[in-house]
Parts: sequence; C-alpha cells; structure tokens
Amino acid sequence: MRGADAIVADDGIWHGGDLATARALFPEAPQPWVDLSTGINPIPYPLPVLPLSLWTRLPGADDEAALMAAARVAYRVPDHAGLVAAPGTQILIELLPRLAPSGPVAILGPTYAEHGHTWRKAGFAVSETAVPGDAATIVVVNPNNPDGRLLSLAELTSFAAQCAARGGLLVVDEAFADFTPETSIVPDLPPGTVVLRSFGKTYGLAGLRLGFAIGAPEPMARLTAALGPWAVAGPALHVGAQALADAGWLARAGLELARDAARLDALLAPHGRIVGGTSLFRLLETPTAAALFARLGRQGVYVRRFQNAPDRLRFGLPGDAAGWARLREALAADAPETSPSA
Amino acid sequence: MRGADAIVADDGIWHGGDLATARALFPEAPQPWVDLSTGINPIPYPLPVLPLSLWTRLPGADDEAALMAAARVAYRVPDHAGLVAAPGTQILIELLPRLAPSGPVAILGPTYAEHGHTWRKAGFAVSETAVPGDAATIVVVNPNNPDGRLLSLAELTSFAAQCAARGGLLVVDEAFADFTPETSIVPDLPPGTVVLRSFGKTYGLAGLRLGFAIGAPEPMARLTAALGPWAVAGPALHVGAQALADAGWLARAGLELARDAARLDALLAPHGRIVGGTSLFRLLETPTAAALFARLGRQGVYVRRFQNAPDRLRFGLPGDAAGWARLREALAADAPETSPSA
Repeated sequence: MRGADAIVADDGIWHGGDLATARALFPEAPQPWVDLSTGINPIPYPLPVLPLSLWTRLPGADDEAALMAAARVAYRVPDHAGLVAAPGTQILIELLPRLAPSGPVAILGPTYAEHGHTWRKAGFAVSETAVPGDAATIVVVNPNNPDGRLLSLAELTSFAAQCAARGGLLVVDEAFADFTPETSIVPDLPPGTVVLRSFGKTYGLAGLRLGFAIGAPEPMARLTAALGPWAVAGPALHVGAQALADAGWLARAGLELARDAARLDALLAPHGRIVGGTSLFRLLETPTAAALFARLGRQGVYVRRFQNAPDRLRFGLPGDAAGWARLREALAADAPETSPSA
Repeated sequence: MRGADAIVADDGIWHGGDLATARALFPEAPQPWVDLSTGINPIPYPLPVLPLSLWTRLPGADDEAALMAAARVAYRVPDHAGLVAAPGTQILIELLPRLAPSGPVAILGPTYAEHGHTWRKAGFAVSETAVPGDAATIVVVNPNNPDGRLLSLAELTSFAAQCAARGGLLVVDEAFADFTPETSIVPDLPPGTVVLRSFGKTYGLAGLRLGFAIGAPEPMARLTAALGPWAVAGPALHVGAQALADAGWLARAGLELARDAARLDALLAPHGRIVGGTSLFRLLETPTAAALFARLGRQGVYVRRFQNAPDRLRFGLPGDAAGWARLREALAADAPETSPSA
C-alpha cells in the first residue's frame, strides 16, 4: 500500500489504526468505520485552546520545562533518574539499541512487534521468548500488548539484576501502565533499566506524537542528544503538560474504561475466550477468528488481527453509543454461523 | 538553563527563538518581546481547521500520502528520487551521518552550527571551511545561514561529483530556498546528494515540526526506517499537505517578505554593513555588535548573535506594525552613542 516515498517504512509489520488498510480490505463496508483496531482511549483528553504561538514559534525552554515537570510527577520519576521526551515512543524504541552492548536480546513475546523488528534491524540476535534465558538485554512490555500479561515488580527487578550483571539493559515498555500505576517499575527504577511511557494511548491523542523514556541520567542524555533540539512539537508540549498534570481526569477515565472493558467482555464472551487485555483493549481467542475478523470488517467494524496468532483478535473500546450498537449488531450477525462451538 | 531532564541537549550551541534565554539575559526588558532572533516567517500560513481525528488517531496512510504528494510537487522532486518526511529537519540532520562512509567531512562555514555538531558527535573528523578540499562528504547550506551565500548549481554539481567519486555524500540544506526555487538542486538531483527542506521557517509554523529529506531511494528508505512509523504528527501531515499545495500563498509571501527585507535593510543601514541574508533574515556587521545586541535586548528586541562572529548580528523580520515601530525606536535610541563610525 505504500510507495517509494512512504513516510512509514513498509516493514511488513501489521499495525492497528490505519483505516486506509481497513478500506482496502473491506471496500464495501458501511461508513463510518468503527475502529477497534488500536488500544487508544476512544474518549480523548479535551484539547485545550492552543495559543497560535505554539505553532508559530520554535518549541521553547519554558514549555519544555513545564512538560518535563508534569511528566516527572505523573510517572513518579525518581529525582536521580533522567527523563527524555520524544515525538512518540516509536522513535525512542528505534534509538534504544544505541544504549545496549552487543549480545543476544530476549524479548518477552509475543508482544508489540516493533521491538523485535528494531533490534534485528540494528544487528542484534533477537529471540522472542517466554523466558529470557541468560540474555544481557531483555525487553518486556508490561502490561503486555496484546494479552495483558503482567510481570511483578520482583520479576522485573530480577531481570534488571541479570541484565546489569551482564552489562546489558532492561527495557520495560509501560505503554499501557497508566491505569495501573502500582505495576510501574519507575518509582523503584533499578540500575540499567529504561522505561518507556506513551502519552497518546491513555489520553486518546495518538496523532499528537508524544512519548517518554526514563532511565539513568547518562543514557537518557544520549537519547536526548540523538533527538537534537525541538524534538517535541509546541502543541504537544502544551497539551502534554496540561493532561499529565490532570490526575482527576486520569482517575475518572480509568473508572470509565474499566466499566467499558467489562461491558466489552460481556459482549465478546459468546464468541470465544477472553485471554487477557488491559482496560484499553481485550484479546479474544477463537478458532474462527479469521472469519470473525472478515465478518466484522464487512460490517465496518475494524479489529486487530495478528500475523503470529491467527486464532486471536484484539478489540479496542467503542467510543460512543453508535459504536457500541454497531459492534453488538455485527457480533450478533456473526453468532449463528461462525461460533457454533463458542 | 537546562536541567538533567532537558528535552534539548545542552550542547552549548546558541539558537535563536527561545524567549526564556532572552528573558534571562534582559530581565527588565519591556514586554512583549519583539523576537527577531530567528529566520522564521513572522506571518504564518493560516492554520486550517483541524479535524479532531488528526489528534486522536494515529497518523494514517492517506494523510501521509497526501503530504508526500504535495511535497513532491512543491519541491519538484524527480520521480526517481526518494522523499522522507520527519518531525522537523533537525532529526534528519541527526540521522545523516548514518548514510556517510567514514572519512573527513567538510562543512562550508560558518553556517548553522548543528551540522558540525552532529557529525562530530557521530565521530567524524569535521572541518568548517570555505573550500571543501578533498573531503568525501561535504555539507552546504544553500542559501547559507546566516550570510545568504549562494553556490551555483554548477558548483553544487561539481561537489556532488567529488563526493560520489570518493564514495561519500553531498548534503545540501535548502532550509531557506523556498523563495528562490531557481537555486534548488532538487530538480536536477545529482547522485550521492541528499537535500534537506524545512517547512516551519517559510510557512511560519516552526512549532509544528516538519522537515524533509530528498535523495536516492535506498538511503531515503534507510532514513524512513530509522524514524519508524508515525514519525510525523497528524496535524503536521494535514497542515503541511495544505500549505505545500498552496503555490499562491507562497508567491504572495515571497513578494511581501522581499519588500520587508528591503525595509529592514534601510532601517539597519545606518548601524553597520549588511553583509548578506535571505528574505527571511538580514546579517549586519558592525564593530559595536555586542553593544547593539545588549541595547536592543534591554528594549525588548531580541536578535541573534554568534559565538564565532562577535561583530555580526542577524535580524529576522518584524511581523506587525508594532514590531517595526519598536525596532525603529530601539535602533534610533542606539544610534547616537554606539555607531559613530557607521
């Protein structure tokens, strides 16, 4: 689908969230799409009024400082740790191999495919595995995407010790940890650990492009230098600072999403087994996943399928009553024919 | 001014455009600042209405394709060449050393300091020089910042041939070429050449973060892969596509800026020698530059000084009548005391 001048490398990795793909797969589907293919909060943080100067001026030190201060509090970053802001977590993932020694990398998978892709691209020997073995560098998404698997802080600390002993790096991608702060390793950051935090999913503003890395000061300074000045756009600095300081909004969103996730589970239960998830997405396992994907798609409901797990589908949360109704109808239309054994 | 968790690496390079620095230097200055410290168009492209989906959704393939198509036309990119979009030219500058063989790098300077800084950081032997000697990699800002020096297409093509013969790279930073399209090497892109184009300066939207690289398909694919997916924010895709397709706005802006640049020259002439510039900035040379910088700053007019050229000041264009008036008054206040020999 992408030509020689694509912004995005056509690396063969499937991602959710691109309706151009949905339209190509299901050209006859009714509009508008109900896009459940991502784990992005469908109820975005309300955009504040954006002064024109955020667009016209280079991002300024004052706005940068305000964002960093808010992020330090929101993520409970220890005073001794470094913090880096970037235009999305993705570019930080791309830069992480610069921080690691050569040697094998264990990625606790299956998980978000860009981790393995990036380390392979950088020349590392990568194993996607359930146990990290004796790797010097370990990558964990916690809670995991797409199955919600959660490692305890004790397990993460043990991994960090293993990596540190081998001169390596523990990467903990906490893209989905905002609603379960007790699962975050940030407040007790072990040596040799880099944590990634994503702004766009929780706050429903994935187009804004904002993400963070947290780790020891020296490697964080290297990431900052690799990004260069003005890495984060003016509007993202402003919205990010305001949203990250709004603990009340986060608490309310967490309650609403938990309620909606339970509602989604109830809708999905007749169609397979819920094998995990977070409050932003649920993972359904069913032998008829491919047929269900196609049937939903033809009805304009786009969900996430997986190259490495053809019996699984990930469902994000509908954002409004119309979305819930269309999901319910699309699932009901599906029930009699393709889920006899569910 | 920046702490351990700065977004921006404190690399000791002075940049224009940060009023936090201006305030620190001149805490008593009257507000608001008249910021002439950048080469950013003070009359921004009118922001279109931005659909909320640009913020909430991951940047989509359709929006990406629209931006790339508009950029290809605006920059007259040959069909055979590759094009990369990034969140600002700066991150592309940071990635360029990956494309070059080891060996000495000649930067035609003095010029924008981030070029030399980046190549040194990547471990290259860098000389800032008036003539490139026999370097395998040559970096040219054309027209140059801050003095507007312009190399002919024949000179650039000759540099490209030298670099290609040595297996190296010619980098042409055309950040200030939008208003002089006849100076661009893009339509006749020689082998082994990478051209950088900046969106924010011409369109007065530097906070948006959008820049491009143009070169052979293989190295451009490497840059695209290094950035990873969703490199450019949704609002930047949308605004960029619209603005780059608006040739009428660009033509009108070019005429207005040329008129304003002439007006600025007339204002500055009594205070020193105009040694160059573009229609977005003018470079003044005077032995009393340091005193003039301080005097303007105390009156709330912030201009650009240079670490490597203490007798020069760069002036951007005021954006409104109030800005012109304050510049005129600040210069007049200066005239009797510090420019006796001008």
